[in-house]
Amino acid sequence: MTDRNRLIYLPLGGAGEIGVNCYVYGYGPVDKERLIVVDLGVGFPDMDGQPGVDLILPDIAWLEARRDRIDAIFITHAHEDHVGAVGHLWSRLRAPIHCRAFTAIHAKRKLDDAGQSTDQVHVAPVWPGMVKAGPFTVQFAPVSHSIPEASALVIDTPVGRVVHSGDFKIDRNPVVGEPFDEDLWRQIGQDGVLAYICDSTNIFTRHPGRSESQLPEPIGELIAGAKGMVVATTFASNIARLKTLADAGVANGRSICLMGRAMKRMVSAGQEAGVLTNFPNTLSPEEALDVPRENLMLIVTGSQGERRAASASLGRGSYLGHELKEGDMFLFSSKTIPGNEVPVSRIKNALAEKGVDVIDDSHGFYHVSGHANRPDLEAMHDILRPKILVPCHGEYRHLREHAQLALSKGMAGVVAANGSMVELSGNAPRIVEYIDVAKTYLDGSAFVGALDGVIRDRMKLALNGLVAVAVIVDEDDVLMEDSWVALRGLPEVTGKGDDLAAMIEAELAEAMPRFNAKTVNDDDRLEEAVRRAVRNLCLIEIGKKPEVTVLIQRLMAA
Amino acid sequence: MTDRNRLIYLPLGGAGEIGVNCYVYGYGPVDKERLIVVDLGVGFPDMDGQPGVDLILPDIAWLEARRDRIDAIFITHAHEDHVGAVGHLWSRLRAPIHCRAFTAIHAKRKLDDAGQSTDQVHVAPVWPGMVKAGPFTVQFAPVSHSIPEASALVIDTPVGRVVHSGDFKIDRNPVVGEPFDEDLWRQIGQDGVLAYICDSTNIFTRHPGRSESQLPEPIGELIAGAKGMVVATTFASNIARLKTLADAGVANGRSICLMGRAMKRMVSAGQEAGVLTNFPNTLSPEEALDVPRENLMLIVTGSQGERRAASASLGRGSYLGHELKEGDMFLFSSKTIPGNEVPVSRIKNALAEKGVDVIDDSHGFYHVSGHANRPDLEAMHDILRPKILVPCHGEYRHLREHAQLALSKGMAGVVAANGSMVELSGNAPRIVEYIDVAKTYLDGSAFVGALDGVIRDRMKLALNGLVAVAVIVDEDDVLMEDSWVALRGLPEVTGKGDDLAAMIEAELAEAMPRFNAKTVNDDDRLEEAVRRAVRNLCLIEIGKKPEVTVLIQRLMAA
Repeated sequence: MTDRNRLIYLPLGGAGEIGVNCYVYGYGPVDKERLIVVDLGVGFPDMDGQPGVDLILPDIAWLEARRDRIDAIFITHAHEDHVGAVGHLWSRLRAPIHCRAFTAIHAKRKLDDAGQSTDQVHVAPVWPGMVKAGPFTVQFAPVSHSIPEASALVIDTPVGRVVHSGDFKIDRNPVVGEPFDEDLWRQIGQDGVLAYICDSTNIFTRHPGRSESQLPEPIGELIAGAKGMVVATTFASNIARLKTLADAGVANGRSICLMGRAMKRMVSAGQEAGVLTNFPNTLSPEEALDVPRENLMLIVTGSQGERRAASASLGRGSYLGHELKEGDMFLFSSKTIPGNEVPVSRIKNALAEKGVDVIDDSHGFYHVSGHANRPDLEAMHDILRPKILVPCHGEYRHLREHAQLALSKGMAGVVAANGSMVELSGNAPRIVEYIDVAKTYLDGSAFVGALDGVIRDRMKLALNGLVAVAVIVDEDDVLMEDSWVALRGLPEVTGKGDDLAAMIEAELAEAMPRFNAKTVNDDDRLEEAVRRAVRNLCLIEIGKKPEVTVLIQRLMAA
Repeated sequence: MTDRNRLIYLPLGGAGEIGVNCYVYGYGPVDKERLIVVDLGVGFPDMDGQPGVDLILPDIAWLEARRDRIDAIFITHAHEDHVGAVGHLWSRLRAPIHCRAFTAIHAKRKLDDAGQSTDQVHVAPVWPGMVKAGPFTVQFAPVSHSIPEASALVIDTPVGRVVHSGDFKIDRNPVVGEPFDEDLWRQIGQDGVLAYICDSTNIFTRHPGRSESQLPEPIGELIAGAKGMVVATTFASNIARLKTLADAGVANGRSICLMGRAMKRMVSAGQEAGVLTNFPNTLSPEEALDVPRENLMLIVTGSQGERRAASASLGRGSYLGHELKEGDMFLFSSKTIPGNEVPVSRIKNALAEKGVDVIDDSHGFYHVSGHANRPDLEAMHDILRPKILVPCHGEYRHLREHAQLALSKGMAGVVAANGSMVELSGNAPRIVEYIDVAKTYLDGSAFVGALDGVIRDRMKLALNGLVAVAVIVDEDDVLMEDSWVALRGLPEVTGKGDDLAAMIEAELAEAMPRFNAKTVNDDDRLEEAVRRAVRNLCLIEIGKKPEVTVLIQRLMAA
């Protein structure tokens, strides 16, 4: 019985969070399944959770330990949270990567940036073309989203068809890229779908999704009414939006200038892949300096408040010689991702201080989401009529809500958060194993595990400040009564006006001679005794127990 | 000419931010004006801006230096961002405090908590009663807001009437507290208003404000449909909401239990001040343990995701013996304040993992704002028809938008951010002086200036991690080649598997013998040389330049 084949689904990232997408499908005998990977995405850190970290990567230890069983890696689309980890993680998996042409440009660049060969990136044909990978046959079915060539994966297995939705929306007129094709989806669903693994990010949004094609009119009106320079920001990868914005600018007599590396890179990738045509001519930032501001429109990076991007730079001062002033207009044609509100708001206020009119999407005129809202998710359920619905890509509350919706509609809805291995091939889907998955952080050039304590330690430093203390144990194992103290992130002077470091040194000079030999001769005990003395004093003097690092120097007889 | 009297307005906090309200009015000869203070509020720190800080206080150095000229402090209402700094700052000003009865309970408790006398808190009569303070006559005019006895201040001066709006909304049926009284406001405006200093927080919200009285029906329906325990959270100070929630619970056969110190304190203050009547009987958390969950409703603190409040505790596990489970319902009858999205979302997901149905206000049914939206602000402009409008309480972009609205309606609109002293008594309002104002942080028991560098240092520690190094210069001024290194918030092992601290010690053992005497004998030079060596090595080994603290121990000849 253990030799029977089974079909499994295992999310390693993206299920229980927004971003960091990485999913595994397997088919074969238990623990001998052949595997395919769907997406290798990243997440972006914030000060609240991962200070100082550069990127959040999925924990692929489970996959790496089974890499001889991986037949292929499929990437659904070129957003960072689906393709961003390819450069960092591919070398640990080494399976061929399949994706569509536009996505392949990005996957290759990421491998190239990481100094790796791009040979293993294969451009996959679109539906009805197919890719064979072990027991799986995979077809890239076009979906509309906020980036070109986004695809769902139609995964045929020996026990039935699985559809992995990727990120998608229902847009019958998406400006750039393939419109939603209901006939295609009916065809995909007509012979029965075993399981639909489906995007859940917008499950709580109750109105039907709006089309990209609804934007040109209000954005055009906005630009028509602008007196000074117009600046617009959105996600660089939202090529349709870039075109919407640029076309609206040109229609209103403005020359277009793209600013920010990601912006230019995306437009050229779109042109290279042939998905972006008729994009207006653009000026370089230098050329744009010669254009009267009432005839200029900048399209810039940094819609999420990123400190080093063009938007933040324009908020602080100038960027590539361009500076905003009274009467200019700045449009956020974007949604602020939760967690980015504070930096985005900082830019809006900095611009307002310059007299710039800041327009955002708080009234829903200048941005549309790239994800399916609840009615559109339901429409897909009804077209595919899967036996099983497994919500993916969403926080836990999104997964739960989506699974409940599925149950209410007669499907088997399963909440499977990261690490939950679901068997799809039994009579009813069930979680057969829990894998420990955390996150891996890219920190500088080092990989740090989310549970290693390194980042938790940084948070403690930020919350509590630090006292560093050096003490010397001399050649005769005698603890010197002098200590050396340095403060970081703590007030130098107490409320009573005393020098805090000097007070700590004085306290230690009094306390240390009382430490017994057992304490002095044992690093852990000595460290703890010093720490306790420092923390107690600080609690009294500044009402706070800081972190304490003790450097114990044991001098050796020469 | 310098002896002529002038009327000035100076915001010290709240103008250019949400929270930390503190405003000054003055009348008299230049630099000899008699002063009154309106509000002494606090702000709440976040990890992005003020890690580890307990409270954000306004910078009152300017006021303190002129404290002999302060005739009174007026508190408009009992929200923390208006009254919260009284305990921390009053001793530096020592002027009598005037506020209404409910607010006085809170002001007194804050002074009491700070170990100070409450003698100087005076309960002010409501309009048409008045308080004389130097050249000012001040009347507390009731407004509707999300706390009882919120008031605008009608400030009569020798050169005309100034109205300071306080936080307010237009609610003709606010459930608890005084409804908006249009006749009263027409009366206040009828003899002309020189300047209206007006709440701006909701200037970008274009629909008319909704009334607290619109909530009982949808909240009642929600509770009626609940199968398990119902938990609701809102701001503790929103006594009307507490009553709305509790009444809806009772109407649906549930016993009410208040959880969280602030919640119980607010209800008893409301009852003590006589503003809250007919609040249902409540059970203690212990008594509530005996009630079947389908007959119980908890009303709890922590709507903003505060880590130690009841909501977060219920998300993590149990609180005072109560634990949520599948089929229970949790209602956020509140708005998430920008910056708190991540912690609030963490609670929602934790609750969803327990199988709890989480309801929030994303569809606008279960919460109404306490601030006037744009149409309501306009209604007040039209009733008072002030000559000058100075927007207060709002981020810079709110102030600017509100001032532009005023200009478009024929008023003199002035953007005056914190530190901008506006003369209101000239022919036209103008900014006559800029005062340097930062913020003061309460950090443990210490006060830290926002520009002192202490908090910036903490952010650096969080972003970069820390290497602490101890080096010894012996009695003969020779730098020992051994150093002692400790890491905080950094990976212990490099990508290549080497021990980072040991590598740093080895690097220093190689570098330090090459330091010349000039470097060794000068603390600053030596520190810088060690720091540079450590940072360069770390950049190579972990791709990151950490913070470096160097403890230089110069041994003295015995």
